[in-house]
Amino acid sequence: MQDSSFIGIVAPHTAHFPQALTLKSGEVLPEFDIVYETYGTLNSTKSNAVLICHALSGNHHAAGKHHENDKHPGWWDNLIGPGKPLDTNKFFVIALNNLGGCHGSTGPASINAATGKPWGSKFPMVTVEDWVSSQAMLLDQLGIQQLAAVVGGSLGGMQAMQWTLDYPDRVRHALVIASAPNLTAQNLAFNEVARQAIMTDPEFYNGDYYEYQAIPNRGLRIARMLGHITYLSDDAMGAKFGRKLRDGSLKYNFEVEFEMESYLRYQGDKFATAFDANSYLRMTKALDYFDPAFPHHGDLSLALAKAKADFLVVSFTSDWRFSPARSREIVKALLDNELSVSYAEVTAAHGHDAFLMPDPHYHQILRAYLANIDTGASA
Amino acid sequence: MQDSSFIGIVAPHTAHFPQALTLKSGEVLPEFDIVYETYGTLNSTKSNAVLICHALSGNHHAAGKHHENDKHPGWWDNLIGPGKPLDTNKFFVIALNNLGGCHGSTGPASINAATGKPWGSKFPMVTVEDWVSSQAMLLDQLGIQQLAAVVGGSLGGMQAMQWTLDYPDRVRHALVIASAPNLTAQNLAFNEVARQAIMTDPEFYNGDYYEYQAIPNRGLRIARMLGHITYLSDDAMGAKFGRKLRDGSLKYNFEVEFEMESYLRYQGDKFATAFDANSYLRMTKALDYFDPAFPHHGDLSLALAKAKADFLVVSFTSDWRFSPARSREIVKALLDNELSVSYAEVTAAHGHDAFLMPDPHYHQILRAYLANIDTGASA
Repeated sequence: MQDSSFIGIVAPHTAHFPQALTLKSGEVLPEFDIVYETYGTLNSTKSNAVLICHALSGNHHAAGKHHENDKHPGWWDNLIGPGKPLDTNKFFVIALNNLGGCHGSTGPASINAATGKPWGSKFPMVTVEDWVSSQAMLLDQLGIQQLAAVVGGSLGGMQAMQWTLDYPDRVRHALVIASAPNLTAQNLAFNEVARQAIMTDPEFYNGDYYEYQAIPNRGLRIARMLGHITYLSDDAMGAKFGRKLRDGSLKYNFEVEFEMESYLRYQGDKFATAFDANSYLRMTKALDYFDPAFPHHGDLSLALAKAKADFLVVSFTSDWRFSPARSREIVKALLDNELSVSYAEVTAAHGHDAFLMPDPHYHQILRAYLANIDTGASA
Repeated sequence: MQDSSFIGIVAPHTAHFPQALTLKSGEVLPEFDIVYETYGTLNSTKSNAVLICHALSGNHHAAGKHHENDKHPGWWDNLIGPGKPLDTNKFFVIALNNLGGCHGSTGPASINAATGKPWGSKFPMVTVEDWVSSQAMLLDQLGIQQLAAVVGGSLGGMQAMQWTLDYPDRVRHALVIASAPNLTAQNLAFNEVARQAIMTDPEFYNGDYYEYQAIPNRGLRIARMLGHITYLSDDAMGAKFGRKLRDGSLKYNFEVEFEMESYLRYQGDKFATAFDANSYLRMTKALDYFDPAFPHHGDLSLALAKAKADFLVVSFTSDWRFSPARSREIVKALLDNELSVSYAEVTAAHGHDAFLMPDPHYHQILRAYLANIDTGASA
């Protein structure tokens, strides 16, 4: 029996952009594809569009299933659907795969038309600003002038913030969830270890492993295991795994002794076969580079002065990757600019991952905020 | 001009143990060597001996220099010397390299007499309990029946705790610094990622890399970079590195952009050429296994009931690897047993590494505690 709030079977679309995109680095992407999905119906005044921006390893498949036998729905399916907090009876939701990704949008594994070979190491660095530019080009192609809202968690929240700065007239609401105005030194450090694990994998071939029929999956596996530690809180890990032994007694060897080890190995193995290492590298770099206050000598209030949108900022108490203190920095800077900002610090045990979970309090906050967004009479 | 509190030039000694040592795993080490250094003079009643237990990557060279041109003194030189908190005018200090290490004591890189080849993958798992047993054998050989104190930070603190349980009559004081009664799930997780980085390095050869003239230094480098993140606090990293750029402007490539990255790469490179991967693996496993409450169904108070020593427990506010809360668990369990325990929670920014630093408040606490230890009239 199908849940009536389930969006159902969805299919991705591909938008081709024949025009060149000059990136923040100065490099030029001569042409590109963006893969996206939509949920709900665009209203006649095109005033009900909501853009979903994905995080590090996310993609365009945010809700629904691709076919009846799909084991898992999209990554934010608990949020998006008819009657769900992001209600597809009201909103036309767009989710896309960012440039540099590995789920259909142009990325390092794509064929570079100029050489006939995969881009590999030659694929340019992409930034949050570049993603926002390309997302705006997608909206142009869809004929959508203004978003009712842009929504993102973690790295996705950074894109939501950037939208309000680069296209202040094209976005009415920004939902910035479990995010930060930039990475701390510790955040940078974790990313660097992840990248070094990948880049020193002998199968990496300086990023051109496709040509060698090689995959640096050892390095990617380590990177993902490490990532998982930072997504969960110490308490959540303690509650879920603690020091539970896999087989009831100690073996005194290097096989799995603790459930914790088993979980990490499983997560690492699964990811290493499903994600492209070059994409992972670039996603972590986009995180590193995001820092809207940088051109303003660290003054975030000055940096956010261009924004016009209303904001909902949400953080989670146990998130030590992007702690509530980082969200409060954003809130403070928005208030300095006399913008309309709602802030919720949700008590949640799951750490950074909480933004993906259907915590009732968290979902109520999103539901209430989104319900109040005006999409015009023809919604 | 030499500082009068500097211990001066020191030389290591090697103690050989021809007798077999049955380890906690049930495996037997048929014979072994322990490398150690001593500082100060053993008094006539042999009542002034202090044992230093080292942490993950430590060794027997705790103080002084090996020759005049040594760039760096021993790892705890700021603590040990004439007139220093651990005063060698009063105490006879013994520091050793633990079994399984790579600085002279028998370890995975040592030759196994039975095969004529390095132990490699065949070197047995060593535990905190095994180290304490072998340390007691070294004291036997030195004719020392009872320690005035056993001192250790981090993994070294676990050994100090274990001493009071396995040899309650052989230790009068235990100084347990920046330690914990066991590892949390998050601690276990970090160790597992470090080990997987080493063990999936193609140069690891299942631990028998010595025979292949190979070194899994890529994996060991990643493990150490990761370790460094957990040794420092987020705040300390922020204060030291923040988001400082290496070259003043962004390069948009995978070279070092941030000072933070440069620091981690340097630390990783340095360690990977100086430490043995098999030793690192075993040190992390010893950490994982330490859990005196385990045979008592998690009841630490019951576990510590055998202890008779007086305790000084020290934690550091910014230590998120072994947080003050973990030290308080130890203090609580000691108090439950009506033992004499002093506890200091030192306000320090450096994170776990603070136990190695000459913080004045921290050193005053150690100095005061150690000054009060009675070593008899002949000291």
